[in-house]
Amino acid sequence: MSGAFLACDWGTTHVRAWLVEADGAVRASQTFPLGVSRLRPGEAASRFRDDIRPALGAEDLPAVLCGMIGSNLGWTPVPYLDCPTDASTFSAALHPAPGDDAAWIAPGLRGPGLTAAPDVMRGEETQVFGWLAQDSARGRGSHVICLPGTHAKWALVEDGRIVRFVTAMTGELFHLLSHYGVLRTEALVDDLRAFRVGAEAAGDGGGLAARLFSARSRVVGASAPAAETASYLSGLLIGAEIAGVPELLGVKSPGPTVLIGEPSLCEWYLMAFEHRGLSASVYDGGKAALAGLSALHAARSRR
Amino acid sequence: MSGAFLACDWGTTHVRAWLVEADGAVRASQTFPLGVSRLRPGEAASRFRDDIRPALGAEDLPAVLCGMIGSNLGWTPVPYLDCPTDASTFSAALHPAPGDDAAWIAPGLRGPGLTAAPDVMRGEETQVFGWLAQDSARGRGSHVICLPGTHAKWALVEDGRIVRFVTAMTGELFHLLSHYGVLRTEALVDDLRAFRVGAEAAGDGGGLAARLFSARSRVVGASAPAAETASYLSGLLIGAEIAGVPELLGVKSPGPTVLIGEPSLCEWYLMAFEHRGLSASVYDGGKAALAGLSALHAARSRR
Repeated sequence: MSGAFLACDWGTTHVRAWLVEADGAVRASQTFPLGVSRLRPGEAASRFRDDIRPALGAEDLPAVLCGMIGSNLGWTPVPYLDCPTDASTFSAALHPAPGDDAAWIAPGLRGPGLTAAPDVMRGEETQVFGWLAQDSARGRGSHVICLPGTHAKWALVEDGRIVRFVTAMTGELFHLLSHYGVLRTEALVDDLRAFRVGAEAAGDGGGLAARLFSARSRVVGASAPAAETASYLSGLLIGAEIAGVPELLGVKSPGPTVLIGEPSLCEWYLMAFEHRGLSASVYDGGKAALAGLSALHAARSRR
Repeated sequence: MSGAFLACDWGTTHVRAWLVEADGAVRASQTFPLGVSRLRPGEAASRFRDDIRPALGAEDLPAVLCGMIGSNLGWTPVPYLDCPTDASTFSAALHPAPGDDAAWIAPGLRGPGLTAAPDVMRGEETQVFGWLAQDSARGRGSHVICLPGTHAKWALVEDGRIVRFVTAMTGELFHLLSHYGVLRTEALVDDLRAFRVGAEAAGDGGGLAARLFSARSRVVGASAPAAETASYLSGLLIGAEIAGVPELLGVKSPGPTVLIGEPSLCEWYLMAFEHRGLSASVYDGGKAALAGLSALHAARSRR
């Protein structure tokens, strides 16, 4: 038994916090608009002490934090761990949070990038290790994990270790294209048929700047409803990601892929996988983060 | 002799106008911030009569216009010509400008797109036919033409006909990424070395959303100067365009490519071509438009 604790996934825009009982049950959870992009320098410790701990009645509990809170925008810069990394190396690298004797911050991961520069993640590694911790069978063999988002991560896991990963800024491209420029639209991603047509238009993902123009030409040249543009664009960008990123990850033909993230976004990815004849399964990103933080807490309690 | 005339390349943001003597010499030229995106509905005719004609002392001359002025945002919607199209078909489709007995508007072109929707252009076709008109030898054989810009066009010309073309929104992607989002930068594209490193990072152009993230990770993960980001990003996007678009145009291995456009932008493209071991030559886009409009005027005068 490792006792009750406070788990925090502390990202760029929000903090998601759970009060976890000794038996693993979640007694309370809350989301705070206190992501690191919204903090003044040096403010993380006081916000954690004065806002987050009291809101969950967790003033005196041990706490484990992951995500951008470990970056130079957060509480304190926690050094990256280099890939490959397994769960025990990860938990051994928990970093004390300055000014809070009972709080620890998880490191991010660094791996070889597509160029001479390394790729980096903070937070997604905790979700991947959380997913791994849910079933010991996952600690064997090879798994491709896709974590959709503003900066989607694709990770290759082999025998329980995160071997390498690739970041794809698909979500950011969607945001920029749908908010500014010639494809901007008020519409939501809600049209399954248009999403599939977009995923089809992704082809092998090459020449993306040209494929993207089809979102314009189908409206001005072929009378497709402009209200479909967001769905079409989402299908195209996600389709191009699925077509192109596995090869960059060094995976020739991806087997079943594990999608970890916000469930409704993962469902769109799932459709794009299926459209390409690929199989995937969805795992809730919040559950994965909580499982990863719980594993970190348990490992720390055993030390 | 076809007499003096007023030539106008009337685009989305600006109008470029030339007063051309009967012997082909340019007596005056001027650029007006009166692109179709800045006109109120129905305003084109009066702006042409009251602003553009008088500024060039061309109140009574015949005029030939090309570009977005022939769209539903412009003076009057001029129907697209379908590819393949040659120069004589193009000039025969000149469209009278309502309310001005001496002004004619060139049609745009429509061709098969990457999807069921057609691709379209308005203005670039006049540049391509202008380039063709400069040398009769260009009317034979096969040529790949690249017209860089916000929405770059790649056209395949065979025996004097524009057979098909592909639009790539490379310039718009650069604008969105460098003005908004995580890669935004005040820097200009001015660093040749960073541009080349970006062109190298384009690889085969696949997985572009992942390759783009290297513009971020090289700064946060490998201490590359943020001031290089615009140059790196430009090299990456242009490199990915050159890597991916010719195949979409149906050209397996592009021979020497003709770059038609704004000379300084074409020079960056030229470097990206050379970086990939491909050859290209640059032809000034303004000269090409003027040559195309002059050929239209001459053809109309002969009728």
